[in-house]
Amino acid sequence: MPIGDDAAVLEPNLVLTVDTVVEGTHFRREFAPLEVLARRAVMAAASDIAAMGADPTALLTSWILPDLEDADFEALVRGTKDASEELGVPVVGGNMALGALSLTTTVVGRADVPIARSGASAGESLYVTGSTGEAALGLEMLLRAQSDAEAWLRPRAHIQEGRALRGVASACVDVSDGLLSDLAHLCESSGLGAIVDLAALPRSADFEERARSIGCDPVELLLTGGEAYVLLFASGKDAAVGTRVGEFVDDGLWVRDADGVRAVEPRGFDHFSG
Amino acid sequence: MPIGDDAAVLEPNLVLTVDTVVEGTHFRREFAPLEVLARRAVMAAASDIAAMGADPTALLTSWILPDLEDADFEALVRGTKDASEELGVPVVGGNMALGALSLTTTVVGRADVPIARSGASAGESLYVTGSTGEAALGLEMLLRAQSDAEAWLRPRAHIQEGRALRGVASACVDVSDGLLSDLAHLCESSGLGAIVDLAALPRSADFEERARSIGCDPVELLLTGGEAYVLLFASGKDAAVGTRVGEFVDDGLWVRDADGVRAVEPRGFDHFSG
Repeated sequence: MPIGDDAAVLEPNLVLTVDTVVEGTHFRREFAPLEVLARRAVMAAASDIAAMGADPTALLTSWILPDLEDADFEALVRGTKDASEELGVPVVGGNMALGALSLTTTVVGRADVPIARSGASAGESLYVTGSTGEAALGLEMLLRAQSDAEAWLRPRAHIQEGRALRGVASACVDVSDGLLSDLAHLCESSGLGAIVDLAALPRSADFEERARSIGCDPVELLLTGGEAYVLLFASGKDAAVGTRVGEFVDDGLWVRDADGVRAVEPRGFDHFSG
Repeated sequence: MPIGDDAAVLEPNLVLTVDTVVEGTHFRREFAPLEVLARRAVMAAASDIAAMGADPTALLTSWILPDLEDADFEALVRGTKDASEELGVPVVGGNMALGALSLTTTVVGRADVPIARSGASAGESLYVTGSTGEAALGLEMLLRAQSDAEAWLRPRAHIQEGRALRGVASACVDVSDGLLSDLAHLCESSGLGAIVDLAALPRSADFEERARSIGCDPVELLLTGGEAYVLLFASGKDAAVGTRVGEFVDDGLWVRDADGVRAVEPRGFDHFSG
């Protein structure tokens, strides 16, 4: 992971991040065409740029590839191109090496005032820009060879949302490890605690039903599901972006549900290999 | 490899490159302590920045790691730190993932006028900043479990040399694939040919003897040995950096030896897994 923030900040206003997905650890080839997995790898990396409120400006790829059919290689190129076009930035460099399949993406960005993880204050509200559990539910679906996995397969780096947070968010992080885990990172950087309102967390109308249909606990998915790539931010203003899902306090990590407020551990997400 | 040049050039004067070394493809763990291999991985990446005549400003690492002993992990950190200190730049970000051992390094640099591969002209001289065969000989030694492999194990990115080439070199490339192969890249970018003077190529006094002692052809090592990480450049001036080893012509790739001038193929280097 990046050191301290989602992405590194260099003079002048240069923001950089690197992220790798590894076959067997982060994905399986049977989950989806390589095109979809390649696009996803770029979006996962770009999400760190979104979390800084930065504009992406360029991508570099470094692929480790086993012997692949031409069609598979072309699918990787196509998926990367799709992501690059969606993000509106060129792929300016790349590297290829022989080995076990993995895709590393370096994303370069610019931000006049990058949004760090450390600026939140007690009393500010906690917001998210999307659902923290849908992607994880999608992955559980894939692991059971079920369909209905689009949220995991086709994440979108929340670049527009991050841009809208300039001057609005006092601190921001993207949800890659899971809501509680990433919130704990933000709280630690800001020297704070937070309370999450369980009922306020965004989810689709049939989220609970879909989760239970495959034996998953919907609350666990919302609180600890990884790879959501939505933004979690603090704001003392009435933010026009995202959904208010809690508030910052002096200390501790808490969840408020129908039974009251309980302390929780910052449990993370271990991908599916854990 | 990067697209077109050794590193990508972004506004304003930002230079970026990414490089990956993979266990089994680029190195074997028995070759050296992980500390040495980690330092080497960073230097290999930084060499692309040297070839642009740029100053490195920051590193990002992305490591794929199997379950490692703590001591092994610490060795990787130490080797990276060594390289970072030698280069005088900070490691500003990183990522770790579970999988087969590989080390990816993104290097950021700055250059007011980056030296491209495309600026050479016929009639200019061809120079190198060091030996093109010593590293390859070192690797051959390692493959035979012999010592005397320092040139392969401890490359140094020729950052100082690259810096000295500003205003001197009209085109530059680093020798990672091998002299003929990288020279062919430079010639292609510049729309030219070149003649290499075999006798002029720098080597240690006992290079031929050491190569022959393990059954290697010293000429092959000099012309096609990879991972030398020296700079190969064109200059119309009397360059105070490096050794003059040939000249640029309109067309073709040629080697001049005691028997005269012969056309050669831009044979590359396939690492040891080929």
